[in-house]
This record gives sequence, C-alpha cells and structure tokens, in this order.
Amino acid sequence: MNYRTHTCGELRETHLDQTVTLSGWVNNYRDHGGVRFIDLRDREGITQIVFHPEAADAHAVAQKLRREDVITVTGKCIVREGGENPKLATGKIEVDATEAIVLNDAANPPFIPDEAEKVGEETRLRYRYVDLRRPAMQHILKTRHRVTKITRDYFDEQGFYEVETPFLCRSTPEGARDFLVPSRLQEGEFYALPQSPQLFKQILMVGGIEKYIQIARCFRDEDPRADRQAEFTQVDMEMAFVEQEDVMSVNEGLMRRIWKDVLDIEIPNPIKRMTYADAMNDYGSDRPDLRFDMKLIDVSDLATQTDFKVFSGAVEKGGIVKAIRVPGGAKMTRKETDALAEWVKQFGAGGLPICKVEGGTIATGVAKFLMPIAEPLVERMGAEDGDLICFGVDPKPATVHRVLGELRVKLAHDLEMIDPKQAEWLWVVDFPMVEWSEDKKRWDSLHHPFTAPNDEDLDKLDSDDHDTIASIKSKAYDLVLNGSEMGGGSIRIHRPDVQSKVFKLLGIDEEEAKAKFGFLLDALNYGAPPHGGLAFGLDRTVMQLVGTSNIRDVIAFPKTQNGADLMTEAPSPVDEEQLKELNLRIQLPVKAPTA
Amino acid sequence: MNYRTHTCGELRETHLDQTVTLSGWVNNYRDHGGVRFIDLRDREGITQIVFHPEAADAHAVAQKLRREDVITVTGKCIVREGGENPKLATGKIEVDATEAIVLNDAANPPFIPDEAEKVGEETRLRYRYVDLRRPAMQHILKTRHRVTKITRDYFDEQGFYEVETPFLCRSTPEGARDFLVPSRLQEGEFYALPQSPQLFKQILMVGGIEKYIQIARCFRDEDPRADRQAEFTQVDMEMAFVEQEDVMSVNEGLMRRIWKDVLDIEIPNPIKRMTYADAMNDYGSDRPDLRFDMKLIDVSDLATQTDFKVFSGAVEKGGIVKAIRVPGGAKMTRKETDALAEWVKQFGAGGLPICKVEGGTIATGVAKFLMPIAEPLVERMGAEDGDLICFGVDPKPATVHRVLGELRVKLAHDLEMIDPKQAEWLWVVDFPMVEWSEDKKRWDSLHHPFTAPNDEDLDKLDSDDHDTIASIKSKAYDLVLNGSEMGGGSIRIHRPDVQSKVFKLLGIDEEEAKAKFGFLLDALNYGAPPHGGLAFGLDRTVMQLVGTSNIRDVIAFPKTQNGADLMTEAPSPVDEEQLKELNLRIQLPVKAPTA
Repeated sequence: MNYRTHTCGELRETHLDQTVTLSGWVNNYRDHGGVRFIDLRDREGITQIVFHPEAADAHAVAQKLRREDVITVTGKCIVREGGENPKLATGKIEVDATEAIVLNDAANPPFIPDEAEKVGEETRLRYRYVDLRRPAMQHILKTRHRVTKITRDYFDEQGFYEVETPFLCRSTPEGARDFLVPSRLQEGEFYALPQSPQLFKQILMVGGIEKYIQIARCFRDEDPRADRQAEFTQVDMEMAFVEQEDVMSVNEGLMRRIWKDVLDIEIPNPIKRMTYADAMNDYGSDRPDLRFDMKLIDVSDLATQTDFKVFSGAVEKGGIVKAIRVPGGAKMTRKETDALAEWVKQFGAGGLPICKVEGGTIATGVAKFLMPIAEPLVERMGAEDGDLICFGVDPKPATVHRVLGELRVKLAHDLEMIDPKQAEWLWVVDFPMVEWSEDKKRWDSLHHPFTAPNDEDLDKLDSDDHDTIASIKSKAYDLVLNGSEMGGGSIRIHRPDVQSKVFKLLGIDEEEAKAKFGFLLDALNYGAPPHGGLAFGLDRTVMQLVGTSNIRDVIAFPKTQNGADLMTEAPSPVDEEQLKELNLRIQLPVKAPTA
Repeated sequence: MNYRTHTCGELRETHLDQTVTLSGWVNNYRDHGGVRFIDLRDREGITQIVFHPEAADAHAVAQKLRREDVITVTGKCIVREGGENPKLATGKIEVDATEAIVLNDAANPPFIPDEAEKVGEETRLRYRYVDLRRPAMQHILKTRHRVTKITRDYFDEQGFYEVETPFLCRSTPEGARDFLVPSRLQEGEFYALPQSPQLFKQILMVGGIEKYIQIARCFRDEDPRADRQAEFTQVDMEMAFVEQEDVMSVNEGLMRRIWKDVLDIEIPNPIKRMTYADAMNDYGSDRPDLRFDMKLIDVSDLATQTDFKVFSGAVEKGGIVKAIRVPGGAKMTRKETDALAEWVKQFGAGGLPICKVEGGTIATGVAKFLMPIAEPLVERMGAEDGDLICFGVDPKPATVHRVLGELRVKLAHDLEMIDPKQAEWLWVVDFPMVEWSEDKKRWDSLHHPFTAPNDEDLDKLDSDDHDTIASIKSKAYDLVLNGSEMGGGSIRIHRPDVQSKVFKLLGIDEEEAKAKFGFLLDALNYGAPPHGGLAFGLDRTVMQLVGTSNIRDVIAFPKTQNGADLMTEAPSPVDEEQLKELNLRIQLPVKAPTA
C-alpha cells in the first residue's frame, strides 16, 4: 500500500484541494459537535485530521482511535475550519479524512510522549521507544546526525579518509580500566575494547594514510559517574607532516562550520589562545570558563605585610595567597558564605577566608586582620562596594588554584552571572609534558606517553633535575568551550629515540615498553612521519548544541550510571555453556553475612 | 616548519620553475654520473627528486638516504632531464633539490612496499604499517572511504538519520555465537557485542525515527573460516511506513550510485528479480551466479522411462533427476570427471553420473543406461557435440539442487567460462518464511524471527499442516552480485499478535520469547509502524569493487582466521588483578597427555 504522499510537517496552503495520504501516530484526539479531530504526528510534524460523520467509515474508525495508535489517513487538504493554529507549521490547513486505516493499535502506553517530563528517567529509559517519539528527542537525534554529517563532509573535502580501526584490541592496562572480551579460539586470552583508537591512528600515519578521520566508539570501564557513559563517541582525527597550528586550524574550521550550520552562530576566527600556565594562574583551571571574569589575583606580597599568620605563614612555607572578587557578592549571608567554606574543603582548602567591600574599604570576615593592606588590596582587586573577596591560601599553590578555580565557577552559577547564550571558546596550549605524582613517586604524562615535547625542550629529556623536567613543555592543545573540554590532542612523538626517552622518564622500562607498545616502537623505527591529531567528544558537542546537561539525552540508547540498559536488561546472566566455551568460571567475592 | 607546498602526485609542467617543498618516503634511490635520484612517495603519488653535487648540502644528505626514510625536500620544479616517465602522473617533471631534511631515518624494514607480494601474508600483517604504504592498499582504503562517503551522502539526501546503537548489548544465544563482555559493576553478568543492530533499528522505527542508517561494526564468534572476520562492517538501514518495493528501490539506487561513482559502471535499472523457488529450481542456489548459463534441467520424467535403477529408483522414492549441460565439457578426461564425482560427495551426492554428447547422441559414462531417452534428453538439454551432461540424482530434491548448484559454479570457474568484467545483479524474492530442520525437529526461520510473512499467508500461521506452513512466503529479499550475497533484508513484523504466532511456530514458547525479546514485544504493543530494512556487507562490497577475494585486503587491521592481530599481538593474557575485578577465573580444559 501507499502509506504517504506527504509527511505530517509538510502541508501548507499551497496544497489546498489536493488529496493526500499521511501516516503517523495519534498524538491527540478530541470531539467537537459530532466531529472527531485527530492530531497526527510523524517525524516531521503534526497535522490536524478532521473526521466528519458524513464520511461514515472513516469516522467510525476514528472514533476508536486512542493515543499512539498508528494509522494511515487519506483525505483532502482544506483550510482549517476552526481558524489557524499558529503553533503548528501546518496550522493553516487540515485534512478532511475520507479513509482511515489502523496499522497498529497501541496498548495504553506507560506514558505518552507529550508527558514524558512527568515520569522518572528510569521509565523513559525502559520504554525508550516511546520517549524517542518526543519532538525534543527527535530534534536531538536529528542534530546529532547533522553534526556527524557536517563532520564527515568537512574532513572529506580536506582529503581525510575514514578508516575503521578494530574493536577487538590488545589490553594495555594504563589509564582507565579496559572492558575485556574473552577469546574462545585463543584459550585463556582476552581482547580489550578500545579506550580510543590512539595507537591505531598513529600506525595509520606510519602506514602513509596521511589524513585519517573516524567517528569512533570508545569504552572505559569506570566507576559510576553521572556525566559518563561506559561507551561514548569521539570524533577522532590524525594528520601527517603537520605542526600543531595545522591541526588546530583544521579543527577550528570544523567547529566553526558546525556552530554556523546548526546554530547559525559565528565562532570567532581565530579562537583565543591561552597558555596552560596563564590558565592555571588566572583561572585555577586548565579549562577556564571565560563567560565571567573573577580572575585569580595574587596578593601574596600584600599578605606578608600583615600579622595574619594564616596568610603570612602560608607564604613563608612557599605557598601563595590569591583572591577573587565576586561582584555583588556582599549580599551573601553568613550562612551562605559558611556553606561555601564547607564546600571548598573537598578541594583541599582548610577554609575560606572572605571579606566584603563596604564604603571603599574591607569589612567583616577576615577584614580585621587585613586592615594594614586594605587600601592596596581593594585597589589591586578593582573591588567596589557590594563585592565579596574570597581568598585562597595554602602552602601548595596547586591547592590555591584548584580551590579558587572551582569556587569561581560555582559562584558564577549560584549568582547567575552567566548569559546562557554566550559562548566562549579557547585553546589552551603549552602544557607541561609531565607532572610529578606524589602517590606514585614518579612522573606522569599530562596527556599521554605519545605526546611530543617541544623541540627546544628535547635536551631536557636527559636531565636528572626535577625543575628542568617539570619545565618541559609539550605540543599539546585542548579546545575549551565555556569551561568544558570539547577536545584535545597533540603532536605525537615520531622518533623512536625520543619515544624511548619519554617512556624511560615515565618509569616504563624497556621490557615493559616492548611488551605493551612494542609494535609502536617498531613502527616508529621503520619510517614514521611527523604527525599529530585531535579527538573531540561527540556526545559533549551535541549536549552543547542542544543545551542539555544530561549526557543520556544525546544518546539513542544510553545506559544508567551503573552501566545497565533498562530497556533490554543488559548486562544479564549467561548460560553455563557459553562460559564453558570461553574457559571461564564466575567466582563472586564472598560477602560478609548480614545479621 | 612547512612540510609541503604540494603532494608527490601533483606537480605537472604547469609548475615549472616554481620552488616547491615535498615530504614523503624514499621509495627508491639510484646514482648516475655523480647525481643522486630519489623517487619520493606520499599518499598521492611519486615524484622524482634529483640531487646535483653542486647543491652540496642537499646532495650530502641524499647520499645517506635509504628506502623508507622520511624526508622533506625543497627545490625547483624542472623538466625531467632524462626524458618523460610515462608510468608516472608526474613523469614530465622532476624536482631539482636545494635542501633536504631527514625527518626520520628508517631502519631496514622487514620488507619494502614494492616487494610486499614476495613476503607471506603473516609478515605483511605483522608489519601492517609498511604494507599499508603500498599503492594497492592505499587504493583500497581510499575506495572504502569513498564507498562509505557515497553511502552516507545518499542516505542523508533521502532523509535518513545516522543513529549509533550500543555495542554493550544483551546476549541472545540465537544464530551465531556471541562475544561476551563481563560486567564489573553488575557482578557475574555479561554484555554481548552485537551480531547486528537488528533489534535496535526496529526499536528506532517504533521510536518514530522513520529512516535510520548506520555503518555498523558487527561481531560473530565463529569457528575459523578463510573468508570471515570476527568483526565485520555492515551498512545497516531501516525505514518505516514502507513496503518491500520501497526498501529494494532505495538500496538499488545506492548500489547504482556506488558502482557509477567508483567504477563508472551502470547497473541495470531495475535489477532483475527472481523468486527463491526459481533460483533453487533453475540454479540450485538462493544466490545464483548468472554470469554463465548451465541451468538445472529436470529430466525426472525421462529418467522413469529407463531401466536405470539409479535414476528411476530415486524418482520412485519421491526424488528427482536433474541435469546440467556443460558446454565443451566433453574434453574433460576420465580423471577429471572422476575427481568431480569425488568432489560432489561433500554436498551429499552419492556420485556424479555423466555422459558426453558425440555425433548428436550421448556416449560414455552412464550413456549406455540412457539410450532409450537419448534423443529427447539431448533435445531437452539443448546439447551439442562436445558438451558434457552431468546428472544430479537423489531421493531428496534439496540434495540434487545443492550438488548441481555447487557443481555449475565450480565448472564455470574451472572451464574459465566467466568474463571477469561481467557483473550480474539479481534480487532474489519470495523466500519461504521457515524451513523444517530435521536435526532440531522444528521449523527454523530462513531469515530471522522478525521477518514478516506475506499478507495473504497470515492465516496459514495458525495451521498445523506441514505443507501449508512450508508454503508461507515472507517479505524477504536478497541482493546478489555474481553469486555473492551483497545484502539482504525484509519487511519486519510490526503487529504483536503476528510476532507471537511466529515465535510459537519457531518453537519459542511465551516464557522464552519474553525473556529474550520481551522489550521488542512490548515495543510492538505500544504503537509500532510497518517497517523494513536491509543490511549489506561493506567488506564484501569493497572486495567486489577492488577485485580481491581476500577479505583481509579490504580491512585496515584485519585478524587472522584464528582471530589474532599479528601486529599488536591480541588477544593476550591479562593480569590476574583484571580478572579478579571481573569475578572471573580461567579454567582451561584438561588436555589428554601426549605420549
């Protein structure tokens, strides 16, 4: 049969008097003066169908219709008798039905799409096929499709090849936890699902592919977190014979096109740059949100001019004192600022010294200890009456940065300082290559072990001096939007001697390097070109574009925090026979008996 | 630094006198009269670089270059002094180098790309990054990219959304064996990697997405077979509110565009149709290769007119006798036809009766038993002198079909009857919905349990009669090219009552259906539109386009038959700690001691 001549979002006055056939779901129905009205919904929109009693057969069918029934309707496109509905794109017309066929009558659904907001997310996930019918979800999936299409078109135009890398990979216990896949043919051995195609894309560069793109599913077996999914999608690219600026420029162009095409927003050209050092010093974060000010201002020198031991003592121990000016923050109550002091403790702060600005000077809080520096403090902070000044104080500068960095973001949200339409893009560059891990008593990569050091820092790789090593910069870059990391990448090491030195610096000895990354070292040995790339999170990008903070909204079939698919009820127990074929036995931990 | 102004495939006479910079791999080098010549290779081609001793620095660098070193060269584009090389697109010019920089000097590689054919496939797979540099492999990966790009463009134009379905799925032990993924958070439970997105794409249709496309990785843990990979890629599509013809037409259009764009070949419009019954009767296969004739011709009626018990006995037992005419086959030796008789036994044949056509009648082989029917036999077969006639005889018609179906394909290859440039496309339609499994003593789906029966056969679902059930046709369709199944699909069941009946027919009781497919039955219940789709194998499609019979050639990082990635050495043993977190223990089977 012919299910449709038009979609439910298509008919206009230009179609008047045409006989049309539409198919879709009954979004709603009502009766008025013996006439039945149906709002028929498909992917493209809603059209009002009217069933007059004169068309007796169709009217009889329509009388039995309930919400979410699936029907096909034929009739004439006429002017909407009850007057235009300006809320609908099809609001000037309606279809006068002469024939109606029920394709499937729906049982009373657990919820109707229009009322999805009234049910809990669990119900929506369990009956995802009902939830997906909501125009909001249709819009998200359409946007996600558009983003991927624009991305593929963009890279194709620039000569990138889409190459598929394997899902059944080698486990390299590094970084996050791998999902394992037992092998049946290789007894007692396992594959791992890829955390990213990083090594394969580098191998592709060594293989002369030169420009690679893949929209790749990645897997991390992490502990439950609200904003993470065990499987997520990244737009993954790599190029050979390029410098950092080339990679950044290509990806900026992509973002510019996506934002323009999807939201009609022009991203500044070029996007702002900031060094890692400046980002940490001024914003206490390597992904600063620039939609609001509240820079971290160093007042350590002033602090030493007071007798306030909390401040001067920290500086004497090699620490710092920094402050942020919270515009209009003086209106916060004691209870509110006390709550902030409690909140910052999770980031390692001992407390949160504050003072308010009143009558051109400081008052309340720690003001009494700071009176000797009141004037230069107010001046340096550019503070005005009604402002709040919050201090970060610690013998460890990193703690001060973290505390104030987190605090400025929280305050900006709490005090509604953010214009939701504003978008502040930023490249963070000049990352240190490594950072010292006190826990592990060794150097850790800030990005990953394949990130190239700056050319002028190559000699420092041979140093034994802590500060010299700490000063090595890498060719890494992160793209930040409104305080969220959208993507990150680097120029990779392409020389085997440099890669060996970096492994050594990271405490990966030759044997371990060979066992884990032997094929990469081999590959670098047999003619690797300079190369670099970037990956950005597709889920996060779509979240930004459609304006949701719930990652599950932008994934067709997401999992709960605990990794459960509520619709299909995965994961699930499997047959003993399946495990036997894989040479596996389940051995659950012995639980302490409950009383 | 600036690595290139042009690619190595780009320079022509229009670039003469320009100063250019190229980067790439040293494909080859030679010296002639104190001058060094380098063939520089990148993804786009090869350019000859000439190093004159007058440019002393560059010449000195060039003298040390060996194959597969990675370099950047700057120089002037000049007319090729030694005369044009017509084999190269850049053969009219060369670059007179003034500067050369070694980006990475390569160790002597295990093989050089030009000589990959000389090493075994294992070596090529272990050093895949060298193998991928071959122009043949670059061509394949580029073709694969183009096919996916064309596919995505085509479906996008028609309003399809690319939707990503999950990789961590529920295991449904049905069809092939699942790859399992142990869950850490849900103790003792497992995900399975998808064998196809079948159920999710149906759910998307119930969710109102209406047009879905995904180029999806699929996984089957099968026993080793030369032409299979544990992970493979399918182009997966589904549409709502459509009939079989709509789905076939959309996919025909795609194939037409791919073949036109990639090979400049016009696929006939429309593609031929053949019923499953005709395909089996005439070609003994549901994916007949139509590049050659040799139809299966029924001679059962003639067979009963002889005293040859082998023939008449089979017919009396309800069997059939069919024959194929092999043009020019009479030249085969006794040894060759005996070998064929041995070969067909693997398909269940007791032997292979043959005769030759000589002097307008039959001779040799079983001719002496068939003399009474010689004249009508030769006439019916349309046989000519020099032909061979091969008979299939069995009490089971299916065995006759299988034997002759396999035999005609083998003979066509052996006797070189196939024009390699010919392409014969075919839709096979009107499949039976189910077939009786003697092993399991129950009905099996010919496609899968979600395939819709023909509307006129719906009543037959309630029948108890074997022949009635066997006669149920389904809305399934397979696309065949030169005897290979390129894709297949069906209209799905969208009514829950029909789905329940089909499950029952297949011996899946209510409890089992609910446990395995409960969410699908629920979904059908809550307003499912009519829908159908198709999936085609991307690997196979690329194989056809580039003309290889080795599936590993069209996959960037393939696995061996045993599922091993020789480059990364996956799968591999994993840490005890990883298994403990997953609550698993390996328990290898006890092997019988070897003497």
